[in-house]
Amino acid sequence: MADEIAELMQSMGRRARAAAAELAFAPAPQKAAALSAAAEALLADIPGLLTANAADLAYGREKGLSDAMIDRLILDEARIQAIAEGMRAVAAQPDPVGQVLAEWDMPSGLHIRRVRTPLGVVGVIYESRPNVTADAGALCLKAGNAVILRGGSESFHSSTAIHAAMVRGLQAAGLPQDAIQLVPSRDRAAVAAMLRMVDHIDVIVPRGGKGLVGLVQAEARVPVFAHLEGICHVYLDAAADPDKARRVVVNAKTRRTGICGSAECLLIHRDLVDGLGARVIADLVAAGVEVRAGEGLHHLPGVKPAAVEDFGREFLDMIIAAAVVDDVDGAIAHIRRYGSQHTESILTEDDATAERFFQRLDSAILMRNASTQFADGGEFGMGAEIGIATGKMHARGPVGAEQLTSFKYLVDGDGTIRA
Amino acid sequence: MADEIAELMQSMGRRARAAAAELAFAPAPQKAAALSAAAEALLADIPGLLTANAADLAYGREKGLSDAMIDRLILDEARIQAIAEGMRAVAAQPDPVGQVLAEWDMPSGLHIRRVRTPLGVVGVIYESRPNVTADAGALCLKAGNAVILRGGSESFHSSTAIHAAMVRGLQAAGLPQDAIQLVPSRDRAAVAAMLRMVDHIDVIVPRGGKGLVGLVQAEARVPVFAHLEGICHVYLDAAADPDKARRVVVNAKTRRTGICGSAECLLIHRDLVDGLGARVIADLVAAGVEVRAGEGLHHLPGVKPAAVEDFGREFLDMIIAAAVVDDVDGAIAHIRRYGSQHTESILTEDDATAERFFQRLDSAILMRNASTQFADGGEFGMGAEIGIATGKMHARGPVGAEQLTSFKYLVDGDGTIRA
Repeated sequence: MADEIAELMQSMGRRARAAAAELAFAPAPQKAAALSAAAEALLADIPGLLTANAADLAYGREKGLSDAMIDRLILDEARIQAIAEGMRAVAAQPDPVGQVLAEWDMPSGLHIRRVRTPLGVVGVIYESRPNVTADAGALCLKAGNAVILRGGSESFHSSTAIHAAMVRGLQAAGLPQDAIQLVPSRDRAAVAAMLRMVDHIDVIVPRGGKGLVGLVQAEARVPVFAHLEGICHVYLDAAADPDKARRVVVNAKTRRTGICGSAECLLIHRDLVDGLGARVIADLVAAGVEVRAGEGLHHLPGVKPAAVEDFGREFLDMIIAAAVVDDVDGAIAHIRRYGSQHTESILTEDDATAERFFQRLDSAILMRNASTQFADGGEFGMGAEIGIATGKMHARGPVGAEQLTSFKYLVDGDGTIRA
Repeated sequence: MADEIAELMQSMGRRARAAAAELAFAPAPQKAAALSAAAEALLADIPGLLTANAADLAYGREKGLSDAMIDRLILDEARIQAIAEGMRAVAAQPDPVGQVLAEWDMPSGLHIRRVRTPLGVVGVIYESRPNVTADAGALCLKAGNAVILRGGSESFHSSTAIHAAMVRGLQAAGLPQDAIQLVPSRDRAAVAAMLRMVDHIDVIVPRGGKGLVGLVQAEARVPVFAHLEGICHVYLDAAADPDKARRVVVNAKTRRTGICGSAECLLIHRDLVDGLGARVIADLVAAGVEVRAGEGLHHLPGVKPAAVEDFGREFLDMIIAAAVVDDVDGAIAHIRRYGSQHTESILTEDDATAERFFQRLDSAILMRNASTQFADGGEFGMGAEIGIATGKMHARGPVGAEQLTSFKYLVDGDGTIRA
C-alpha cells in the first residue's frame, strides 16, 4: 500500500513538472479564462457539490468532529457562490508572470532585465476547509505553477467535486489538466511522500492547525511557506489616542478569535495602567473576553492573574494575556521574547515611537493604529492568499500569486564578450 | 572534541543572532564606515597578511595541493589591494536595508509599505580562496546580516588575518564585532554543526567545488543559496550573425575555463553544420579547445567523437561538447535535459527565436548574443557577489547584498478596525 502511494505520488509529481513547463509560458488571458471557466463549472453543478458535501458531513459526524470543524466543512449555496467569486477575483488580478522587476544597462553594453517567472510546482497540504482547494488551485495557476493538492480526509468528496470543476476550467481554456491535481487517496502516506519530493515539488504550503504545520515544518525536505502560530501583540503606548486605542484593541481580539491575526497579548505602558489601560481592559471584559493579567494589573476589575505560560500563547479564543511594560523598548523586548513574528500593532500618536517599533521589530507585519485582524491577503489587496508566512526566505506575510513566483535574468548583448 | 565544537558553534550562533538584532537597524553610513575602515586596516598591515599567507602556502605545499589550488591561495600586494578595493566597492553601493519595495493604499484606509530588511544570520562555507572572507563578510554586513565564516583549512591563517582587519573595521565604526565571525577551528565538525543550526543561521552559502556544494545541499537543514554546477550552453541559431557568433563562442569557452560561467556545450542549428558551425568549431580547435562532437559533426576537422556522458558535463577545462539540433526547440529540449539552470546564451538576430528561448527556458540567466562568462555579480552591477544560485527560492543568479535581504510589511492606520 505504501509502495502504491509512493508510486502514485511520483507519477503525480512527474505530471505536475511537465504541466509546469507548459504553464510557464501560458499567456495571461488563457490562465484567466481557465479560472473563469472553473467558476462557471462550479456554479453549473451546485446540487452535485452539495451531495458530495453531504457525504463528507455524514462521515465527519460519524467520526465525531467538533462543531467548529463541522462548520468549516459545511458548504451551502452562499459559500459556493463565494468560492466561485474568489476564483473570478483571482482571474481579474494582474498576471505576475513576465513582469519586469528591474532593468538596467551595464558599461559592457549588456542590457539586463530581471523578469518574474513561476516557481514551478507547489504542494498544498490542508485540513477540512474545502474552499482551500479552489483558493490554492486558483492562486497557483495564476502564478503559472502546477499544484498538487492534498486535502483533509474529512473534506474528501467536497474537494474532489471542486477539483473536478477546476479541471473542467483548464480543459475549456486548453491548458494541461495536470496543472491542478488532487491526491485521490485519503492515505496519510501521501503527505509523507510530498514532504520529501524535492525533485517534483518546489515549495509546500501547509494550511491548518499547529499539529499539521509543525509536522510539515519538522519533516519537510522541500521548502515550506507557513506560520506555526500567530501570537499577535498590541502595544498601548503612553502617546496612544484613547478612542483609537479602545476601538482597535477590542477589534483586534474579538472580531474573530479563531484566526491567526487575532491579538493574543496586550502590552500596556506603565503610565497608563490606571487610566487608558484600565479602560481598555474594562472594554475587553465587557465584551466577554477573559483577561489574564500579569503583575501590576491584578487590581483591575474582572481580570484573572496570568500564569507564566499565558505569555507567548496562541489562545484562538475569547482570552487575552496582558502585561505592563516600561516603554516601547520594553514592549519590543517582550515581543522579541514571546512573539511568533506574525503581526504586532502599536497604538501611538508619537511618530518617533512608532518608527522605533517598526525598525526594531522584525515581524512579517507591523502595524500602527490598526487592528491585527487586517493580517490577511485580501485586506492587503492580493485578491486571495494561500497562507501567511512568518519565515524570512522568499515569501513573507500574506502569500498571494506574486509570492508564488521566482525570477530569471534576461540579458541582451550585441556580440558582447568579456575582457 | 566534537562536543567542544558543537558548543563553540552554538555560542557563535547565539552571538551572531544578537549582533544581527543590532545590525538590523544600524544606519547605512555606519555600515559603510566599517567597511572602509576594514579596507584601511587590511592595507595597514600587508606584511602581516603576507606572513600569514606564507604559513598557509607552506602547509598547502606540504599537503601536496595542486598548482591551481596553490594559485587560488596565494596573496600578493596586488591581490591584497584588490581585496581592499572590493570592500570599498561594497561600501559605496546603495544600502538595501529600509528600501521601500512597494507601497499602496487600501479602501480600509490602511497604507501598506513593503520594506527591505536583513535576512538575519548568514553562514558561509568555503574552500581555499582567502578573499571570500572579505567579499562574503562585506556583502553580509552591507545587507545588515551577521555572518559566520568557515574557511578552508588551507587558507586558515590568511582568512584569520583578513577577518581581524574586518573586526577592526567593525570596532572603528562602533558596530558589534560578532557581526563578522570566523570559525577559529579547522575541525570539520564545525561544518556539520553549521548545516543544522536552523535556530541560529538563516541561510548557508557554500563556495567551492562540486564536492563541497553537493555535501552542503544534501546535508543542510538550513536553506542554501548555491549552484552545484554551471553547465552553460551556447546555441548557434540559423539566424546568428557570423562575426558576433565566432567572437562570443570562443570567449564563452576560453576566457577562463575554471569558472562556472564557462560554456560547456555548443548547440548548432542543423543548417549551419557545414557553414558557420564548422567555422566556429575551427575557431575553437585553433584556440586549443578539445571539441567533443556529437552525431553529424564527426566529419569536421580536429574534433573528437563525444561520449554520451560528455553532454551535461562540467569540464572546467579547455574542452567543449558540441551537438546538432534541428532548431531553437531542439536546443531548448537539449538544455532542459542536460542543463543545470545556470546560464545559457542564444546567438541569433531573430527576435522571435530569441524570445522563444527566453520564455521557454528557465535558467537563472538567459543571454542573447553575449558570452556566458558575464554570469557574475560584478558584471551584473552588484559590486560583488557571494555566489551564484540556481535554485528558485529567494535568491537566483548572482547573489549580491540585495539578495541577502528579506522584507516586512509596515502598515499605518488611524484607529482602523476590520469590519
